[in-house]
Amino acid sequence: MRIIRFLDNDNKIYFGTDYENDTAVRLEGDLFGELKQTGQKVMVKKLLAPLVPAAIFCIGLNYKEHAGETGFQLPDYPALFMKNPASVTNPGDPVVIPKVCLDKPEVDYEIELAVIIGKQAKDVPVSEALDYILGYTIANDVSARRWQKKAGGGQWVRGKSYDTFCPVGPAIATKDEIPDPQNLSLQCMLNDEVMQDSSTSNMIYSVAELISYLSQDTTLLPGTLVLTGTPDGVGYVRTPPVFLKKGDILKLKIEKLGMLSNPVL
Amino acid sequence: MRIIRFLDNDNKIYFGTDYENDTAVRLEGDLFGELKQTGQKVMVKKLLAPLVPAAIFCIGLNYKEHAGETGFQLPDYPALFMKNPASVTNPGDPVVIPKVCLDKPEVDYEIELAVIIGKQAKDVPVSEALDYILGYTIANDVSARRWQKKAGGGQWVRGKSYDTFCPVGPAIATKDEIPDPQNLSLQCMLNDEVMQDSSTSNMIYSVAELISYLSQDTTLLPGTLVLTGTPDGVGYVRTPPVFLKKGDILKLKIEKLGMLSNPVL
Repeated sequence: MRIIRFLDNDNKIYFGTDYENDTAVRLEGDLFGELKQTGQKVMVKKLLAPLVPAAIFCIGLNYKEHAGETGFQLPDYPALFMKNPASVTNPGDPVVIPKVCLDKPEVDYEIELAVIIGKQAKDVPVSEALDYILGYTIANDVSARRWQKKAGGGQWVRGKSYDTFCPVGPAIATKDEIPDPQNLSLQCMLNDEVMQDSSTSNMIYSVAELISYLSQDTTLLPGTLVLTGTPDGVGYVRTPPVFLKKGDILKLKIEKLGMLSNPVL
Repeated sequence: MRIIRFLDNDNKIYFGTDYENDTAVRLEGDLFGELKQTGQKVMVKKLLAPLVPAAIFCIGLNYKEHAGETGFQLPDYPALFMKNPASVTNPGDPVVIPKVCLDKPEVDYEIELAVIIGKQAKDVPVSEALDYILGYTIANDVSARRWQKKAGGGQWVRGKSYDTFCPVGPAIATKDEIPDPQNLSLQCMLNDEVMQDSSTSNMIYSVAELISYLSQDTTLLPGTLVLTGTPDGVGYVRTPPVFLKKGDILKLKIEKLGMLSNPVL
């Protein structure tokens, strides 16, 4: 099933499926319990990010070519950071260049396969890890590169957590629709120019390995969003560097997951 | 007011005040809206962490003597990382040494003044920052030092996010009880030996400066917990190093905020 979250004409928030021509069939219930089809077709006034995450875990340097282009050493373990949950942005809503980034361009895109944890996970073996996944969606791990480096202690959270820095959507494809998460092509387009073009087959740590690793001695709550890393082609390592600016249009596509598009403001 | 969160004899979760002799006066309502006294005195079967945080922001290296002992350069901006919200632990509940830390001792304590954001904050000037605070409590930023360093990319999140790594409590002292958060003594005791003994007057960035900084271009949701950094005296830089082991008892005291005690398992 493909699940959207949306506002109807009365600005009520619903989950829905069978989204087409600005209508959807309303779903009733709990995203992490049971969602039932009501059969009721309603107008979709505005698409929302398909969930309000309990937490956002992000993996850095999980594609060899990207680790190479950044000059970082390949880590012995998946590099883990987090984003502020309030950074989530709806499909179609703008990525806003923060005021603290206006001196010099520095804001960059990162297409990522995003995994949604469906049930509480702890100490999960790799062989069972996919069972804990509700589904998949697309995320953009928008990053302010100077803040990522200069905000103290070498920690990336500050430069990754500004408002609007986590577009998510357009829909959740439940895991039955994605039998193999390691065989999805992904492309990030900036003003219709392809900037990132890879496949999840190029991940260093697979989705199952990441979930198993993250769950070691650690509870992953239902609704935890795991961003699984970005492939090569990000803006700041290009010659000359490419950074986001007002008026840009981002289009992120992952096979079977649709397209997540956001303008830049 | 001093606010606790607790289980009553029927294992129902309530907020309460006037906690003494295992009873409290039950409060009704929303921690971030209005909490009303019911006048009803009830048994407190078990204290819980005083809130379920929306997110946990942590500041590193915010006491000069601690930054010095770790060998880190004083950062130009507050060093920011996050902890998994599921790492929160109740007062009295054990800090559990993770299985992935059993090879060699590495788990360390860090007493911190914890700030609870009471209303949504964004782009808040320093002069108004304290207005956005609901209150204060004590937190222990438990840290696995090898994982903090070896988990990839130099990112601290992994070594800081294991289950039970964020004891919080015992109560929220609302901000009217703490007119000056920069003048509180704090002590961390390990098996009754004083390991950390300092004052919040030694912070590099004040609470107001931290909230203002964190809110730049960034929404701080109500219920965001901000750990404001730890003073000198942590275990891993001692000669010989001191690490937590099964059977230890941690007692963390901050002036006007009471004591947060947790055994180590």
